[in-house]
Amino acid sequence: MGGLIGLDWGASTLRAYKFDETGRIEETRSRSWGIRRLPEGGFAAALAGITEGWPTTLARLACGMVGSRGGWREIPYVDLPADATKVVNGITRVQLDNGTALHFVPGLRDPSGPDLMRGEETQLIGAIPLHTDIAGNSTWILPGTHSKWASVRDGSVTGFHTFMTGELFALLSEHSILAQGETAPHDQESFARGVSAARDSGAAGALSRLFSARALMLEGRLPPAATADYLSGLLIGEEFRAALAGHLAAPGATLQLIGEPALCERYRHAAALFEIDLAPPLRDAAAHGLWKLAEEAGLLRTTVEAPRPC
Amino acid sequence: MGGLIGLDWGASTLRAYKFDETGRIEETRSRSWGIRRLPEGGFAAALAGITEGWPTTLARLACGMVGSRGGWREIPYVDLPADATKVVNGITRVQLDNGTALHFVPGLRDPSGPDLMRGEETQLIGAIPLHTDIAGNSTWILPGTHSKWASVRDGSVTGFHTFMTGELFALLSEHSILAQGETAPHDQESFARGVSAARDSGAAGALSRLFSARALMLEGRLPPAATADYLSGLLIGEEFRAALAGHLAAPGATLQLIGEPALCERYRHAAALFEIDLAPPLRDAAAHGLWKLAEEAGLLRTTVEAPRPC
Repeated sequence: MGGLIGLDWGASTLRAYKFDETGRIEETRSRSWGIRRLPEGGFAAALAGITEGWPTTLARLACGMVGSRGGWREIPYVDLPADATKVVNGITRVQLDNGTALHFVPGLRDPSGPDLMRGEETQLIGAIPLHTDIAGNSTWILPGTHSKWASVRDGSVTGFHTFMTGELFALLSEHSILAQGETAPHDQESFARGVSAARDSGAAGALSRLFSARALMLEGRLPPAATADYLSGLLIGEEFRAALAGHLAAPGATLQLIGEPALCERYRHAAALFEIDLAPPLRDAAAHGLWKLAEEAGLLRTTVEAPRPC
Repeated sequence: MGGLIGLDWGASTLRAYKFDETGRIEETRSRSWGIRRLPEGGFAAALAGITEGWPTTLARLACGMVGSRGGWREIPYVDLPADATKVVNGITRVQLDNGTALHFVPGLRDPSGPDLMRGEETQLIGAIPLHTDIAGNSTWILPGTHSKWASVRDGSVTGFHTFMTGELFALLSEHSILAQGETAPHDQESFARGVSAARDSGAAGALSRLFSARALMLEGRLPPAATADYLSGLLIGEEFRAALAGHLAAPGATLQLIGEPALCERYRHAAALFEIDLAPPLRDAAAHGLWKLAEEAGLLRTTVEAPRPC
């Protein structure tokens, strides 16, 4: 027997992958059961629900915020530099109340920040072997609620930095004086104006330009429905401006995106305005990483306990 | 007869001043009836409520967000450069539904931003004559939800810049992953750490350091109850860093604070960490400004209509 159930369990979404014994994904499921919005019955109910009908004999490996404080169990971080082997050594087996086991991938800690990640380490471990051409010296951008810029050298994560871009966008576009309540199809021009304003903000930075979105809107120079796209451009542009000012992209390093296609398209557009050419993103990186980690950890060979009868 | 009712009507608070015919404040009232949280009956009920028992023969002059889009009436902005006379010329008399009149102070517009203010122009007009020693070349900091840094030359406002510091602090400390739900007495040390982190963030800026608050807290290096003070320091420090990087304080200009004492104390502490010595803030600047504008506009001599009987 073989195979694996891999879980990518973040703050807002829970994704489950069923792998066959060769590592091929047989089925993917997604629920809005992130650790901040669990169903009734909590973590156990979410796990049972999303794996319903899948063999209980398969090992289960979870990455992401499920292993954070506020998650199901708090799993210690692994310090940088970290390669796949070091992450494998940090995998923690937790005995659940029903007698079955769940394995947790540890997050990474960059002591120089300090900075932390949970989940992105698995995406990186999944992506690096697919890009041996650049993995010798590369910078990986993982856009999201808490975007990461990670440096990889010879297969090891050597440093990373978090930008709260996605969370700031959600807060400002929904709850601030910049919120418009109107939505519109993606307005590329307003997005590009925001990116350019951030790029051209110099050392003062785009935080000092946020209010300009309101001024432009009140003057009729920015349609209310386009304010969100302008703001998105301003914040993603600021991420690039600050990352470049902070030398997060090492000289000579290739930049590579990992993440959700529509969001990565915005990052590619922003990068182009900084004269950086970004290739389309890698997809399913978390699934690749979960399989690779489970394989190296020997989880595919473990005997899995059947749940105790209630 | 003379005297005046002055209204400082912002997004969250409504303040009313009753002046005697010499400009002395006889009574001050404050209600949480900002334009975003009006009582039942809206603007008219708020005005009637806060001026209850005061003579209906007094002229009434209002400044602040009450004159913005989303306020009671939208009053056009006056473009920079602007002195008291130019603001007086922009005062708009509005006939209310009950037949009485309310005068509105216009806001200011800096075309070079673009940037906008409503209410702070009245505080500046109140403060400048009290500081003729520095008003020849000065920079005024008005901390708040939307902090302003304003340049004044020879009694005229020549430029200003808005930082959304207070609004960002409220959003992040209450609704983001940095929210702790715990409050504690002001922790000066954590505040100073935040200011220093922003000061030392260089051209990358402190927006890229926000997540460090969570990392420090999870590592036990920042008490959860002190996270809000660290965040406050980081954001106020970023305001100073960006303002100095953007040359908002003109060379040779004296810096002066206007605003609420506790918040201004934080700005003085932050300024000290940037080796800037800030004097204690001016108070009641809005009241001084309302009186001065009403006087120059000749409102103290107008005949005021009695309300129509219902």
